[in-house]
Amino acid sequence: MKLEMICTGEEILAGQIVDTNAAWLGNALLEQGFEMQRRSTVGDRLADLVEVFKERSQHADIILVNGGLGPTADDLSAQAMADAMGVSLQQNQHWLSVLEQWFSSRGTLLSKSNLKQTMLPEGAIMVDNPVGTACGFRVKLNRAWLFFTPGVPSEFKQMVQQQFIPFVEQQAVQKQRVSVTKLLTLGMGESTMAQLLESLQWPEGVTLGYRSYSPYLELKLICRNVSAADQQAALLQAQQLLNDTIVAHNQPCLAAEVHSLLVDSGQTLAIAESLTGGEISSQLVAFAGSSRYLQHAVVSYCNLAKTELLKVSEKTISDYSEVSMACVAQMLTGASAALGSGQMTDYAVATSGIAGPSGGSAENPVGTVVIGVKVASAVYCQKILIAGDRGRAYIRDLSVAVALDMLRRAILKTLVVADYSYIKRLESQQFAVAERSSKL
Amino acid sequence: MKLEMICTGEEILAGQIVDTNAAWLGNALLEQGFEMQRRSTVGDRLADLVEVFKERSQHADIILVNGGLGPTADDLSAQAMADAMGVSLQQNQHWLSVLEQWFSSRGTLLSKSNLKQTMLPEGAIMVDNPVGTACGFRVKLNRAWLFFTPGVPSEFKQMVQQQFIPFVEQQAVQKQRVSVTKLLTLGMGESTMAQLLESLQWPEGVTLGYRSYSPYLELKLICRNVSAADQQAALLQAQQLLNDTIVAHNQPCLAAEVHSLLVDSGQTLAIAESLTGGEISSQLVAFAGSSRYLQHAVVSYCNLAKTELLKVSEKTISDYSEVSMACVAQMLTGASAALGSGQMTDYAVATSGIAGPSGGSAENPVGTVVIGVKVASAVYCQKILIAGDRGRAYIRDLSVAVALDMLRRAILKTLVVADYSYIKRLESQQFAVAERSSKL
Repeated sequence: MKLEMICTGEEILAGQIVDTNAAWLGNALLEQGFEMQRRSTVGDRLADLVEVFKERSQHADIILVNGGLGPTADDLSAQAMADAMGVSLQQNQHWLSVLEQWFSSRGTLLSKSNLKQTMLPEGAIMVDNPVGTACGFRVKLNRAWLFFTPGVPSEFKQMVQQQFIPFVEQQAVQKQRVSVTKLLTLGMGESTMAQLLESLQWPEGVTLGYRSYSPYLELKLICRNVSAADQQAALLQAQQLLNDTIVAHNQPCLAAEVHSLLVDSGQTLAIAESLTGGEISSQLVAFAGSSRYLQHAVVSYCNLAKTELLKVSEKTISDYSEVSMACVAQMLTGASAALGSGQMTDYAVATSGIAGPSGGSAENPVGTVVIGVKVASAVYCQKILIAGDRGRAYIRDLSVAVALDMLRRAILKTLVVADYSYIKRLESQQFAVAERSSKL
Repeated sequence: MKLEMICTGEEILAGQIVDTNAAWLGNALLEQGFEMQRRSTVGDRLADLVEVFKERSQHADIILVNGGLGPTADDLSAQAMADAMGVSLQQNQHWLSVLEQWFSSRGTLLSKSNLKQTMLPEGAIMVDNPVGTACGFRVKLNRAWLFFTPGVPSEFKQMVQQQFIPFVEQQAVQKQRVSVTKLLTLGMGESTMAQLLESLQWPEGVTLGYRSYSPYLELKLICRNVSAADQQAALLQAQQLLNDTIVAHNQPCLAAEVHSLLVDSGQTLAIAESLTGGEISSQLVAFAGSSRYLQHAVVSYCNLAKTELLKVSEKTISDYSEVSMACVAQMLTGASAALGSGQMTDYAVATSGIAGPSGGSAENPVGTVVIGVKVASAVYCQKILIAGDRGRAYIRDLSVAVALDMLRRAILKTLVVADYSYIKRLESQQFAVAERSSKL
């Protein structure tokens, strides 16, 4: 069975908007054991739409069409499909009554532009949309079923899950058993990883996939009709090879992994961010339940904020600068103790550095970053140098990644300061919180 | 001239990665006056690649192919193109010597997997890649030039800008004069906006486009061969209609607008975030130069952080709860004065609310958010209710948007508490910082 997708919309073709619906659909289908063969993206021009519907309907069995069902003049999917079939548009009476109810329950009248959303190609089978004003529909042309869905992501996703995937399952003669295991890694380059992994034998049906989303690299083990034992063997082999670079297993991101470790730990966290400007905090707070461990974060962007809010000593900053191991160690203890009452948080994480493009010096060029973690009575700090030509966003993203990974390692009671192959470490130290000293 | 793009890679087709290169290219071309006609996305299967190259080369004049030039086994673009042309792969001697130098300057040897990157279809014209190990190339098949580019975004972008766009310009017989003006809005729904705008006459050649990226809605005025006077008239007409909902003009996001206003103002900012967890701060710190105005941000996630770090009184929290106008007003003054020495920052912004899915109460259901801004000696606060069923991420995103918009309005000395059509305001107040009272 050949499965395709057609994405419509000038804003997608012209790059005004990134097509997250397409990525989401690919994922959702793969998890159900279906693979797409092709995706075609066209704009809003009627002729282009008609052409792509006619053409792809000769190659595919099922085509999901996304977008162009809205109320505005550039929403032309229904018209184009009618033209491709050589039929006219007809008002769908059921959807008309649904919309009339929807608007009257909100105290407004059905507008002319919304009325357009009740017009479907003659013979189309309406598909319900319980959360929006655009109904879906499906029609048969040549060898294909074309299944039309709205572009609004929440409406699209609900329609795919409740109606499209069941439809595909019903049409599918045989279904593959596909499972995907994801290992998120930090610190190994793609060609190194590929060379390591591809030199080995893998069980039949196992394919390796790489997803690079800077600075992380995700390895996917895609298993098609593979026995549970072989899946397990493949996973073990990958884990042994990637070993210490693995930072999460089947998690969407490292912050999700750290979040769940912190929730499980029942312990508390304080954050002090200079360089990363609140991003570590924001990534954790994205998950419900973060209030169980996060007490506070301080974005100590100017030096006065470091001395006033985090009790970093002015002498430390003048002697060693704010991008120093000594300063970050004090930021950690300061953040950890900031809420007074003699209590310290169980964990703390802190960053300070030069994100650039200006602000670098001979001593601390752009890309110099100090990252530290406090756990129980110990503080771990490292000073690293990230190539300054990678840009401000990369320097911040990589700093957030290393900070979260150090925190993850601290919670797991494993080596906190790890080696990342492409990061140059300038210095690292471990202090006891009371005395503050002892070189690693 | 027909321009198309072919995106390759299982990870893009299957949705493991969102195709940001495609969006970026569409934008970059449009800004140069070129429009793409279609984008086709296929996986890594050799047969699918060969088929799409053969097929699209019969319809387009120039096709940019992205991805599949890497060192790993699933990188098959060169092989597939050779198969489509019925030729074999040949080693490119020039690229071989470039790679040998590249690796020897890094003290390593050229690996077997990188050697694969020197093999191009017979007759291909090599395209230099100054920042990576994958060279590009171009070949002619049927009516089309196929132009191959690497998938790594930084390498891709550089090759497009330095080589692909000049190539397109050289091939183009006539070029449209296209200009795009973007108005970022907050607070008006898409169908309302469309109905308002589409009821008007627009100069010939002006097309309206909408880009919804929650919670913002961007209006694009796309002008093809339109005189400067008509462009100006169209812009004025749009501005008059959208009026107060416009939050930025030709900026990528609201944070960019607020950042540049703050830099220009020469004034200082303090941030206190509870609900939004550091996201306001992080969005501003993303821009170089934020240290010129941002003193600090406090993510006061637990109540003790509010009382200790921001000097919110315990009685305020026990009398009114932490999601109250009184609490946020104290967060603002506390943040503003947090660095001691009697000095307050010029501006402050603060948020507190219930992001859910749990934590709501009868008094403050999920989606209740209080947002405040301090400017000079006045504090403006509003309490809003965001539909809780829109989810945690939406509640946070919309809160960040409203907070940034209130700050923008305060800097521009315009009405700080504005109406957003789809946000329910429960309460709003203006306090003088000294006395703290006086209902709006």
